[in-house]
Amino acid sequence: MIFEPLKIQYDLVSWLSLAGDRIRQSMLGPIQVSTKSGPNDLVTNIDRQIEQFYVQQIRAAYPEAQICGEEGFGDRISDLHGLVFFVDPIDGTMNFVRQRQNFATMIGVFLDGQPLVGAIADVMRSELIVGGPQIGVQFNGRPITLPDQQTLADGLLGVNALMYAHDRYQLQALAAQTSGVRVIGSAGLEFMSLITNQQIGYISALSPWDVAAGWAIGSALGLEVHNLAGTTPALRQREVIVAGIPAIWPAFKKLQN
Amino acid sequence: MIFEPLKIQYDLVSWLSLAGDRIRQSMLGPIQVSTKSGPNDLVTNIDRQIEQFYVQQIRAAYPEAQICGEEGFGDRISDLHGLVFFVDPIDGTMNFVRQRQNFATMIGVFLDGQPLVGAIADVMRSELIVGGPQIGVQFNGRPITLPDQQTLADGLLGVNALMYAHDRYQLQALAAQTSGVRVIGSAGLEFMSLITNQQIGYISALSPWDVAAGWAIGSALGLEVHNLAGTTPALRQREVIVAGIPAIWPAFKKLQN
Repeated sequence: MIFEPLKIQYDLVSWLSLAGDRIRQSMLGPIQVSTKSGPNDLVTNIDRQIEQFYVQQIRAAYPEAQICGEEGFGDRISDLHGLVFFVDPIDGTMNFVRQRQNFATMIGVFLDGQPLVGAIADVMRSELIVGGPQIGVQFNGRPITLPDQQTLADGLLGVNALMYAHDRYQLQALAAQTSGVRVIGSAGLEFMSLITNQQIGYISALSPWDVAAGWAIGSALGLEVHNLAGTTPALRQREVIVAGIPAIWPAFKKLQN
Repeated sequence: MIFEPLKIQYDLVSWLSLAGDRIRQSMLGPIQVSTKSGPNDLVTNIDRQIEQFYVQQIRAAYPEAQICGEEGFGDRISDLHGLVFFVDPIDGTMNFVRQRQNFATMIGVFLDGQPLVGAIADVMRSELIVGGPQIGVQFNGRPITLPDQQTLADGLLGVNALMYAHDRYQLQALAAQTSGVRVIGSAGLEFMSLITNQQIGYISALSPWDVAAGWAIGSALGLEVHNLAGTTPALRQREVIVAGIPAIWPAFKKLQN
């Protein structure tokens, strides 16, 4: 069976748009917040509802696909064979709860472990990036590319605040080679920053649903996504991810001694 | 002479609106970037042009006022007697250059050293906060207030990335009492986050033009602005500033031993 990436892209845009409407509508009422692994790991009723919405849509349109979702309404994935949808209904739930903005909804689609299509929406700003290696990338419906040959000094570095504070992987020395660090609090919006040339790198510990969409889109523009071993992420568990312009990985690797 | 804060507020909104138009227009052409104190301390032709625009407007409308501007087109201030305008034409110049968003333009007005009126515009999102102790606060033209009795655990903390990385003032321990840290890269947008209840605190080393507008607006909503001595900022030089909900200062002070 051939999975047409343009067809999948069309579906993703449609679903993210509907999900964005539902999220904005839900925010008019009370949000039920509960904690997961700790006081700063939040989930809300809306995260769950939106994931269920996505799962229903994917099951109907791509019944043979596997689904890996943050809130557990998908499948227990045993391998990446065939079509796999990685679903993050609300990425940056802390921002969603505390700021009511600066969060994303996103889906990344892989075929036999290779990036196929991704879509990330900044829900409150109504911004959307979508694309993949075979179809290019669009930002709010407009095709985009990235400059070649950028260096670390050409831009800002997105970091996980705690990894940066504790100087894990010598992140502070890496940051000193850049224009400075920023902390957004949403992996989806960090990848959107990379893809729209607002940052040159992003380093954090990320789950498969945090990285899949951004990787699928970014790889179409020459952005690279590495795990600590220097290979591409396995998308099977949480891993430290080094993403960005090609110059980021050698600079990061050089500091790991 | 009586300086009517509503009149000043009206002028600030008018000038920031015109400045925003000019900044957006200028961004269509090339931006001339040069460095000031170091490679990550930038200034552009647009910073200078906009400060000159503000200075002209202020001189015409308030000829008796003193002006303290980031780019040096104002006066050499020897005291805070009378009306003083603190002008930051582009706050977050690194973001302006690297991201072409996430920067502010702002003016804070003080009378005999006391906060009178401030205005901060997020130029690319066309968001504006304006107000002061006598006139209340408006966000995009709508009156706003802040919840009472917020605790550190109720929100996010904006920090200067290097102070946080180097754990100056035990910022990492302070951050651990909050929902987490964010790094925006613009003092004006950090104060906008405080004033719109997106963050509960902001800690950085700030110049008078970085702090004046946010302090003038925030003080109208019960936000507090301290320097390391625990007093209000002197607005005469760069100081470490602890701003936010009333609970921030005692928590910060407790960690300074």
